[in-house]
Amino acid sequence: MAASKYLTGDPSAIDAFLDKFDTFLIDCDGVLWSGDHVFDGIPETIKLLQSKGKRTVFVTNNSTKSRKEYFAKLSSKGIPCQVEDIFGSSYSAAIYISRILKLEPPRNKVFVLGEAGIEAELESEGIPYIGGTDPAYRKLGMEPADFAGIADGSSLDPDVGVVLAGLDFHVNYYKLAHAHGYLRGNHIKDAKNAKNGGKAVFLATNIDSTLPMYHSFFPGAGSASIVALSNMTGDQPLALGKPSQAMMDAVEGKFHLDRTRTCMIGDRLNTDIQFGVEGHLGGTLAVLTGVNKKEDWERTDAPAVPAYYVDGLADLRGASN
Amino acid sequence: MAASKYLTGDPSAIDAFLDKFDTFLIDCDGVLWSGDHVFDGIPETIKLLQSKGKRTVFVTNNSTKSRKEYFAKLSSKGIPCQVEDIFGSSYSAAIYISRILKLEPPRNKVFVLGEAGIEAELESEGIPYIGGTDPAYRKLGMEPADFAGIADGSSLDPDVGVVLAGLDFHVNYYKLAHAHGYLRGNHIKDAKNAKNGGKAVFLATNIDSTLPMYHSFFPGAGSASIVALSNMTGDQPLALGKPSQAMMDAVEGKFHLDRTRTCMIGDRLNTDIQFGVEGHLGGTLAVLTGVNKKEDWERTDAPAVPAYYVDGLADLRGASN
Repeated sequence: MAASKYLTGDPSAIDAFLDKFDTFLIDCDGVLWSGDHVFDGIPETIKLLQSKGKRTVFVTNNSTKSRKEYFAKLSSKGIPCQVEDIFGSSYSAAIYISRILKLEPPRNKVFVLGEAGIEAELESEGIPYIGGTDPAYRKLGMEPADFAGIADGSSLDPDVGVVLAGLDFHVNYYKLAHAHGYLRGNHIKDAKNAKNGGKAVFLATNIDSTLPMYHSFFPGAGSASIVALSNMTGDQPLALGKPSQAMMDAVEGKFHLDRTRTCMIGDRLNTDIQFGVEGHLGGTLAVLTGVNKKEDWERTDAPAVPAYYVDGLADLRGASN
Repeated sequence: MAASKYLTGDPSAIDAFLDKFDTFLIDCDGVLWSGDHVFDGIPETIKLLQSKGKRTVFVTNNSTKSRKEYFAKLSSKGIPCQVEDIFGSSYSAAIYISRILKLEPPRNKVFVLGEAGIEAELESEGIPYIGGTDPAYRKLGMEPADFAGIADGSSLDPDVGVVLAGLDFHVNYYKLAHAHGYLRGNHIKDAKNAKNGGKAVFLATNIDSTLPMYHSFFPGAGSASIVALSNMTGDQPLALGKPSQAMMDAVEGKFHLDRTRTCMIGDRLNTDIQFGVEGHLGGTLAVLTGVNKKEDWERTDAPAVPAYYVDGLADLRGASN
């Protein structure tokens, strides 16, 4: 495999790089900012790309925020964009449910393990859901009636056809027990004759094991709810976030992009760079302001190797500064 | 491997079986009862064994009840026993911490992910703990200050040396984030020079993936908290419940039993029967009133094969009825 090309401080290489692409898919956490701290020169860099006629699409695995909330954050940081230029794992999941799964009523309801970002995107696609931020599921401990109602399905909703799990800061045993009941098909009376034995389809927005925050790590969507459910049922969910190619297909379908003229920019090898490589994009660019460093992709067991790298995204201004 | 010998309805085989053993280690759920329903003839069978001079020890992976609570349940069902004859995974964990780990103060405190049964057993061994049923940890959602305090360790207890995870019906993101902080060593200021980088020792009472209740299955200790933490840290806990031989060593140490004259009785191949086989006991007896059936141990990939089996434990009365 060819070595990754280093662009920082090399104006002619940067010009050649920019000329290769029409569209840049840009990860947010670790590329544009760390938490609330935007890296130096980021707004100017995005503006530069746009002034050269490049399309900038923001692609994030964070499911807790909707596209509108991401738009608000990008705008408040001075990064020019439109709501339509944002693609999150919650939106990816909603698109998958509405346009690929196309569940027939009445079994078209989604049980949500997650926050408001998922709910907003399901609503935008007109998908009915329960769970999520509903205070009725924000409960600690189990009453005997809770066990009984989940076991015989009497307290479950017979219309649930999907369990969608993402990052949920309010995850608890009561919610997990409900999700597990739907994945087992406890809510379907005639389970033997039902599709897939009455079991709900298991989807995940993303399976990141940890969530980088406050210069430390916290339980990610993959750990706090998804592996718990997988460990009980023995089944893995279809994950709709990077590096899932279901997300790439959705991005391509929406933006009608030419993959050979598209570059994925990110800080994580096993999500961002792998996403671009497996999607056969024209290029991938790693930045060193987030999770992975150069030594990570120089290992023989690296999940993916970027075609280009820069110290930080703002180094792309090199040619024009 | 020799075929399992079927004892039901064969008085002479039962007599020969009973003559081989002085001590019976008996699992509870699926052997004595299912939930609150005691199987027919169980109290009489236990009395019969005791009248023949056999020692009956009750060995359970359920960590939510203390030995005293198990004693109360056994007694209320007419099953004669003493508190000393009961060995649970919580007690096993407490014994391991106090007598094997022997943590030096001040870093000898245990962060508990679990219910009152674990707390009672830690108290019986004089082990200090935090977490558990403390209402302060029964919290849904995360404030910015919660993230900040766990990340820099300022809201964590510097004396925690162990994270002990068991079945916790009140598990939530806030508790998981604390446990993860201790497993990372966020609470130790001079982590580089601390033992194991300041990371707390990761123990589990048991790793059962599901909990059979109300003729269905619910999230077990292994799923609701333990795989979540393992997925974040990449480390597996030392599990103190069956089939862990740490539990067998603790049982042997306490009862001074002759393993060749001891038989393990249970319904689960991958906990009870494996526990007896790997512990080189004189025998193992499977009952068909719980999780596993004959076809399960006849598979080539069976985790363990019992030496004997009966339809139900009460069939051991055959010779004397």
